[in-house]
Amino acid sequence: MVVSIIGIGLLGGSFALALRQKYPNVRFVGVDTSVVNQKIALAKGIVDEIVDLEEALTISELNVLSTPVDAISKMLPRMLDLLPEGRTIMDLGSTKELICQLADTHPKRGQFVAAHPMAGTEDSGPGAAFKELLPHKNVIVCDKEKSNPDSLGLVETFLRDAGMKIHYMKPVEHDLHLAYVSHLSHISSFALGLTVLDKEADEKAIFAMASTGFSSTVRLAKSSPQMWAPIFDQNKTNVSKALGDYIELLKKFKEAIDNKDLDTSLNYMSRANDIGRVLAGIEKK
Amino acid sequence: MVVSIIGIGLLGGSFALALRQKYPNVRFVGVDTSVVNQKIALAKGIVDEIVDLEEALTISELNVLSTPVDAISKMLPRMLDLLPEGRTIMDLGSTKELICQLADTHPKRGQFVAAHPMAGTEDSGPGAAFKELLPHKNVIVCDKEKSNPDSLGLVETFLRDAGMKIHYMKPVEHDLHLAYVSHLSHISSFALGLTVLDKEADEKAIFAMASTGFSSTVRLAKSSPQMWAPIFDQNKTNVSKALGDYIELLKKFKEAIDNKDLDTSLNYMSRANDIGRVLAGIEKK
Repeated sequence: MVVSIIGIGLLGGSFALALRQKYPNVRFVGVDTSVVNQKIALAKGIVDEIVDLEEALTISELNVLSTPVDAISKMLPRMLDLLPEGRTIMDLGSTKELICQLADTHPKRGQFVAAHPMAGTEDSGPGAAFKELLPHKNVIVCDKEKSNPDSLGLVETFLRDAGMKIHYMKPVEHDLHLAYVSHLSHISSFALGLTVLDKEADEKAIFAMASTGFSSTVRLAKSSPQMWAPIFDQNKTNVSKALGDYIELLKKFKEAIDNKDLDTSLNYMSRANDIGRVLAGIEKK
Repeated sequence: MVVSIIGIGLLGGSFALALRQKYPNVRFVGVDTSVVNQKIALAKGIVDEIVDLEEALTISELNVLSTPVDAISKMLPRMLDLLPEGRTIMDLGSTKELICQLADTHPKRGQFVAAHPMAGTEDSGPGAAFKELLPHKNVIVCDKEKSNPDSLGLVETFLRDAGMKIHYMKPVEHDLHLAYVSHLSHISSFALGLTVLDKEADEKAIFAMASTGFSSTVRLAKSSPQMWAPIFDQNKTNVSKALGDYIELLKKFKEAIDNKDLDTSLNYMSRANDIGRVLAGIEKK
């Protein structure tokens, strides 16, 4: 069996590395527009061979589309056009509504499975891929009833064999929740990093004074702009709403500080403390 | 020699635990209004004995004032009143301007040393104290020229023997920088936690969908409200300015997303990526 990884980055690369341990007889081929990514993917043993997109679609039982989401939207309809009968395309994109809508209008909709693993780091590219990224993580599969049983079964088996726990969800739900539990975190971190960099032209002061709390909060500001700009764009309505909610709360917090209204500050923080219970649940899962 | 820890929490407790390894012949006594904190501090071997504040000041060569900053401001003038000649008080508070101002008007100013270790976790209380917290971290000492050479020398020796690297700064500078590299991180995290909790009444969705990026960004939302409300209040002007800068940037980011202005989003994120260089410096230090 041949599996293709189209867009060999952190997610696609880590998926291949996790699967290779369970599937010694599968040949992994890679498609990537970046020559450096091609070389790194071969050097790390993520894929056995680099091929072009048409060839990948011709030879692969499963095609894993793991490019940034703007490229997924552009490529998916044409890839379905070229896809032979009985073969499957899955994507790993961080947004699902637009991608599923595009697939819905295609006659080969059944051969597509929409998935999104709840895993990542602030690093990107095949150099950042590692086989431990996906095991024990959750993965969301959307609109499973629109996929053929064979395509769905193949994808579910591979996701489980990569060590992941599958949850099912509508694309609309997925994008709404993700705006709050992922996309907003990234924007808050990008903006925090930039606010501090703009103010603290003297980096020595940051080095001397920042501690682990700061590092943890701005870590996501290292994330890839090319990956995140299209995510925010494809999930514009939800992200804008989440960001609006966040800004409103920050303004109220600022007002409480300005007015020396410690009761209100204390109330916000005490309620926020409840996130400890949620984090314990995330770490336990 | 006797050293007192007044307010036996994460910082004071960790300072005592780090020092005990280097000073086997020092007796550590503790002062705390919480009976539970007293019991935990004794049970963990942070202090050898619980005493009242007056006794601590009578018997101790060095008094480490490590309560929340509102209590520091209230207690410091009276403690200096009671302090015998030749003895020292140091504080470990997260704000320095108001505390140093209060000390400045006291006839025993020379017996006070203002310090702030750049270390902490989202946990608080003596139960969270651990001897590895302070070693290899930076500590800021403010207005060192206002402390007697003997008091300053004693405090510097103890800080270095606890494994810390000393930096010197004016209180005004300290509070300005801290607003950006620490206080703002905490507010952004408290507000992020609360925004998500308010929206995601169904916690199961958060458990299934949040990943390590989310955890890292909201970790500080577990921090103690009783500790942080007075910090934001004492550093009101700087915190309000930093928070205002942050809100302005978030509004512009939202506008760029709403207008599908990907160039501006990309520009913000690419500039924020530069924080990677700063984080590498923090981790290396």
